[in-house]
Amino acid sequence: MEKLYDDERLDYLLGEELRIIQSPSVFSFSLDAVLLAKFAYVPISKGRILDLCTGNAVIPLLLSTRTKATITGVEIQERLYNMGLRSIAYNGLEENINLVHGDLKEMPQALGYHQYDVVTCNPPYFEVLPTSEKNPNEHLAIARHEIMCTLEDVVRVSSQLVKQGGKVAFVHRPERLLDIVTLMREYKIEPKRIQLVYPKHNKEANTLLIEGIKDGNKGLKVLPPLVVYEENNEYTKELKHILYGE
Amino acid sequence: MEKLYDDERLDYLLGEELRIIQSPSVFSFSLDAVLLAKFAYVPISKGRILDLCTGNAVIPLLLSTRTKATITGVEIQERLYNMGLRSIAYNGLEENINLVHGDLKEMPQALGYHQYDVVTCNPPYFEVLPTSEKNPNEHLAIARHEIMCTLEDVVRVSSQLVKQGGKVAFVHRPERLLDIVTLMREYKIEPKRIQLVYPKHNKEANTLLIEGIKDGNKGLKVLPPLVVYEENNEYTKELKHILYGE
Repeated sequence: MEKLYDDERLDYLLGEELRIIQSPSVFSFSLDAVLLAKFAYVPISKGRILDLCTGNAVIPLLLSTRTKATITGVEIQERLYNMGLRSIAYNGLEENINLVHGDLKEMPQALGYHQYDVVTCNPPYFEVLPTSEKNPNEHLAIARHEIMCTLEDVVRVSSQLVKQGGKVAFVHRPERLLDIVTLMREYKIEPKRIQLVYPKHNKEANTLLIEGIKDGNKGLKVLPPLVVYEENNEYTKELKHILYGE
Repeated sequence: MEKLYDDERLDYLLGEELRIIQSPSVFSFSLDAVLLAKFAYVPISKGRILDLCTGNAVIPLLLSTRTKATITGVEIQERLYNMGLRSIAYNGLEENINLVHGDLKEMPQALGYHQYDVVTCNPPYFEVLPTSEKNPNEHLAIARHEIMCTLEDVVRVSSQLVKQGGKVAFVHRPERLLDIVTLMREYKIEPKRIQLVYPKHNKEANTLLIEGIKDGNKGLKVLPPLVVYEENNEYTKELKHILYGE
């Protein structure tokens, strides 16, 4: 049994298939991470996958159920990195997943250029503007605001780490769609698949999933809409399937 | 009664509210035009609206039910322009709608720069590539392929015709999303609202509605998904409302 610290909890992932250590005051995974882990292309039997801004390693844990590829997670916050290590050990996934504690901007040099088949990232969503209010909790602020890395850092570094023809998948807010596609094209990741996530059938989209191919050809698909809640505030059948494997 | 030529028919628009002349061998309006006429912002009581690539004037006819603004349609094919004129007369809308027979690329000079509150356009969708097959029917080919105008022509001319702060709305294919937003930003029309149209709940989007503001601020919304057909191939309740006013 891995040790739990402070207000940490051992939560379930995908029904009861996996366990994950998290803490409301330090980091809890979001639905967006789960959606990205479902949306991203992964090779089934071999290859190398990299997850940037991995937090408590929720995306590597989820991806490990879909692939035999080796998965590397990168996290800059030591406290989250440490939670991730313990979750990986708890699930007995040390052979499949390894974590790196460090700054993603240093990863091309540390891990090598163009070595990964797939790069995923659920980055901080909020730009740091002179007027913007940040979470006073530093752990949460770093996870949510572009304090340690900007969207451009994420896209540039992903482009440096992925192989030619490899895939890069992000989750972000629809408001940043134009920034993301502009940056992706600037760094030679051609957007190929988009999926919009709508909280309800009659609501504006609040989440964007996007995947591109390094040096890929033009041609974009918009996947079927993903609706999270029914009118009665229960998860839709599709979301239950993604969340619990039901 | 306006005269009908060849295989022209007098069809209904919006239930039985309007009539429109069309012809299967020359031009019939598409669902996309109806969706654009519903999606586009229009001022209610006054102002000037311009519809480029107006065809048989389906968008001006539909918009006339939503606004007292004056509406101008521009069409390069004389045969379609003539059908549009007769439909406008049939509905007694000569005071509200006027048509111009001409090339949209000449319209800024002909109609004046930055004179319109709203510009709409349902342009030809298909790029003319050396390999692309065109419709052997010239009327249909011009309406569907970028023979007489490219997407860049449409965006540039829209930007020249719309007032500062005015709105520009297009309907197109999702595959061209990145081209459209890139061109809109190049010509200073900031994308503000997007709506994806899905043929069914579980299908990829096949139509994109997009509206921008000339010299507008950044900030994009993705409206609720628009689904056309139920599983049983009937129109959804929402589509019936748009098509028939039900």
